[in-house]
Amino acid sequence: MSQTLRVAILGAGTVGTEVIRLLHEQGADLTERTGAELKIVGIAVRDADAPRDPIIDPALITDDPASLVGRADLVVELMGGIDPARELVLDAINAGASVVTANKALLAAHGPQLYEAAAARGVDIYYEAAAAGAVPVVRGVRESLAGDRINRIIGIVNGTTNYILDEMTHGGIGFEEALAQAQQLGFAEADPTADVDGHDAAAKIAILSSMAFHTRINIDDVPVEGIRAISAADVATAAESGHVIKLLAIAERRVDDQGREGIALRVYPALLSTDHPLATVRGAFNGVLIEAQAAGELMFYGQGAGGAPTASAVLGDVVSAARNRVSGGRGPQETSYAQLPVLDPGLVATQYQLRLLVADQPGVLAKVAGTFGEHGVSIQTVRQSQLPPTEGPAEIVLITHRAPEAALAATTEALAGLSSVQGLLAVTRVEDH
Amino acid sequence: MSQTLRVAILGAGTVGTEVIRLLHEQGADLTERTGAELKIVGIAVRDADAPRDPIIDPALITDDPASLVGRADLVVELMGGIDPARELVLDAINAGASVVTANKALLAAHGPQLYEAAAARGVDIYYEAAAAGAVPVVRGVRESLAGDRINRIIGIVNGTTNYILDEMTHGGIGFEEALAQAQQLGFAEADPTADVDGHDAAAKIAILSSMAFHTRINIDDVPVEGIRAISAADVATAAESGHVIKLLAIAERRVDDQGREGIALRVYPALLSTDHPLATVRGAFNGVLIEAQAAGELMFYGQGAGGAPTASAVLGDVVSAARNRVSGGRGPQETSYAQLPVLDPGLVATQYQLRLLVADQPGVLAKVAGTFGEHGVSIQTVRQSQLPPTEGPAEIVLITHRAPEAALAATTEALAGLSSVQGLLAVTRVEDH
Repeated sequence: MSQTLRVAILGAGTVGTEVIRLLHEQGADLTERTGAELKIVGIAVRDADAPRDPIIDPALITDDPASLVGRADLVVELMGGIDPARELVLDAINAGASVVTANKALLAAHGPQLYEAAAARGVDIYYEAAAAGAVPVVRGVRESLAGDRINRIIGIVNGTTNYILDEMTHGGIGFEEALAQAQQLGFAEADPTADVDGHDAAAKIAILSSMAFHTRINIDDVPVEGIRAISAADVATAAESGHVIKLLAIAERRVDDQGREGIALRVYPALLSTDHPLATVRGAFNGVLIEAQAAGELMFYGQGAGGAPTASAVLGDVVSAARNRVSGGRGPQETSYAQLPVLDPGLVATQYQLRLLVADQPGVLAKVAGTFGEHGVSIQTVRQSQLPPTEGPAEIVLITHRAPEAALAATTEALAGLSSVQGLLAVTRVEDH
Repeated sequence: MSQTLRVAILGAGTVGTEVIRLLHEQGADLTERTGAELKIVGIAVRDADAPRDPIIDPALITDDPASLVGRADLVVELMGGIDPARELVLDAINAGASVVTANKALLAAHGPQLYEAAAARGVDIYYEAAAAGAVPVVRGVRESLAGDRINRIIGIVNGTTNYILDEMTHGGIGFEEALAQAQQLGFAEADPTADVDGHDAAAKIAILSSMAFHTRINIDDVPVEGIRAISAADVATAAESGHVIKLLAIAERRVDDQGREGIALRVYPALLSTDHPLATVRGAFNGVLIEAQAAGELMFYGQGAGGAPTASAVLGDVVSAARNRVSGGRGPQETSYAQLPVLDPGLVATQYQLRLLVADQPGVLAKVAGTFGEHGVSIQTVRQSQLPPTEGPAEIVLITHRAPEAALAATTEALAGLSSVQGLLAVTRVEDH
C-alpha cells in the first residue's frame, strides 16, 4: 500500500475541477481500491491567474503542460480540442505514462495514432468519458461484450439535443425557443453547432463503433443530420401517432448488395415509438441500446454530460489504469483486426414519415399513393393531421414501410411535380424496434 | 499471438453449452481480442453419457472435474450450487488458475473465502454473470464506478418474478396462473421457491452490495419477502393509482439513530410509479438503477437469465481474465475495507399502500385516519377502490407518507381492533423515485 502514483491533470475546467475534488474526497478509498496513493503532481491550465475553486491547490497550477506530462505515471487529459491535446497525449505515452482522456474530438479524429503509440509503449489509454459521459458504455463494449458479437448500437448520446427535443415534445415550443432555454440553463453552449448539427454525436458513435466492430471508424465516416429543421409541428405530428423525435446515433452490421459485410453509420433525428426503450430517455440524459448476438438487447442509461458525472467516468478510468500500474498489467487494447468497410448509408432502408400539404379535392390521395407505388415505396399508414390547419389545404401524414433512401428521394421528387401536392412540409425517418 | 490458454469448463448445461458454442464460433475473434488462443482442455459433467449438443466434442467430456482444474489456466465454473463447486474453485485458484463463475449461491454464501484465496494466489476471480445475467452491472460497480461513491442500488434482478408480475399486470391473471404460465414457458423452474420467495434476488443484491460498499454482505444479511402473497386485486389496485408492483432488491447507505453509517438491505415487492425508470422493465428482463454521488443515476438493463445471454457475460469475463494472463496483470480485486454495519431494516422508513375493507357507514374514515395519526403515520392519499366490490363492505385504499416499519405495524394492529374495519386485505410498500 506504500506505492505512490503521480497524477497530472491537464485542464481544470468544470470536469477537471470535479476530478480534482473526487481525488481529494475519495483519496483514502481510492488508495484502498487501487493499492496506491494517487498524488496530484500538477494541474495544467491555460491561464494560471484565473480564479479557481478552493479545492485546487494553487501551488500545483502550471501553464506549462509539456513539462508536466514527463513527470507523471497517469495523465488525465481534460483540455478538449485537438491541439495541443494530441501532442501532449503522445508525449505522455512516449514518456511511459498511462492516459485517461475525455476528449471525443481527439479520439474520433486521431484515435488510431494514439492507440498505436500506447500499444507500442505498453501503456494504457482509457476514455470512458469520451462517449456518453457517465454512462459506462465504453467499458460495456470493450470489456463486458468482448466475448460476444455486437450487431447494432443505437444511442441518444447528446444531452443538449435530447433536452431541446424533450422540451419541444413536452413544452410544445419550437426549436429556437427550446435552444434559447437550453443555453440559459447551461445545457447548450453559446455556439451550439457541435451539438445541434450532430457532430458531437457523430464523434461518439465513431468511437463506440470502432470498438464494437474492431474497425477504425473516423468521424468523417458518419453521415450527419442535425435537428435544426425539426419544427414544433413535426414533434406534435409525431406525438399523434404515438412517437417521439430523438436525435439518434446508429452503427450496425449490414450486408451490401454484393453480399459484403460492413458497417452502416448515421446520425439523424428520427421518430421512435413511445414504447421504444430509448423513448423514455428524458431531458439531458443519454441512453445507448446495444444488440449483441448472445446477450440480446442491453441498455445503458445515465447522465451524458456535466462536471460531476463526467468526472465519475474519468475517475473510474483512473482507478483501472492505476490498478494496472500496481499489478504490472495492461487494460484492454484497441483492436482493429476486422477492418470492415463502411457502407454507403443510402443502402440502409428505413421507414419515413412525410407531412404533405395537398389540395382538398377528390382523387388526391389516390394520386399521392400511386406516386409512392411507382417508386417502389409502400405506405404503412396515412392519416389527416389533427393539428389545427394553419393554411387552406389539408395536411396529410404518411408513414412508409422500410424503403431505400434513393427510392424515397425519387418519390419526393415526383410528389413535388404533382399539381395537387402544394408542399412537402417535412420528411423524418422512423426507427422501429 | 502464439500463446495458448487452457480453458476448463465445469458444467455443460444450458449456459455451459452456450459458452462452448461462443468459444468455438468466436475463436478467431477472441484470439485477436486477447492475444491468446483459448483452447478448451476439458468439460466436466455429472453424467458423461448424457446426450449433448453436437458443438460439444465428446473427447473433451469428463466426469472427473477435480482432475481437470489442475491443468487449466482459466476455469469456468457453471455447475451451480455450493458443493462440489466451492472445493473445485478453491482447487483451481490454489493451482494458479483464474476463475470465471456464474454461481451466485456460492458467492453470496462463501465469496470472501474465494476472494481471499484468489488474492493470496495472485489470480483473478470474475463473476459478471452471477448478479444479473447479461446485464453488465458487476463491471459497472467494480470498475466504472470505482472512483465514485455509490449511495444506493435498486434493482429488478429476478426475471422469473418480473415475468409473473408483468403477466399479472398486463394479463389480469392471478399469481398461481401466472406462475404456471412461467413454468410452461421455461421462465420458472418446477420448484420456483428460490425465485418467487426472493432468495435468488437476495443472493444477487448481497453480491452487488458487497462490491458497491466495500463491505462483506452475506445472503443471510438480506431480509426477504417474496411475491406469493401478491394478488390480482393488489396489482389492479396499484394500477388505479398509476403504479406497477415489482420485486425489488435494494441496498443503500443510511445513518442509524446513533448517527452511525451503515447499509440497509431488503428484497420485497413494492409499488413503483409507472414513470419510475424500473417500471419499464418488462417480462423476464432485469434492470438495475445505481445512484452514485458524482455520476448521479445510472441504469443498466438487459436479459437477466437464459443460456446465450448468461454465456455472453461469462465470455466477457473470460476475455478479461485472458487479457490479464497475457499482460501479466490482475483484474480488480475484492475490497472490503469499509466493513460498514448492516442496519436493522426496521429503521428504513418507506411508504405503504393498505387495502382495507370497512363498514359502509358514516364516520368510518375519520376513525381510520385517526388511528394512523395516533401512531405517527401520516396519510398521503385515500380513495375508494374502483374494483367491482366482491363483498358487502366498501374497500378503501390508503397510501401513507414514509413511516418506520414499527409505526406501520402498530397502526395495522390498532386498525384490526376497530369494529368498523372488517379486514386488512393487503399491505404493500411503495418506493418513490
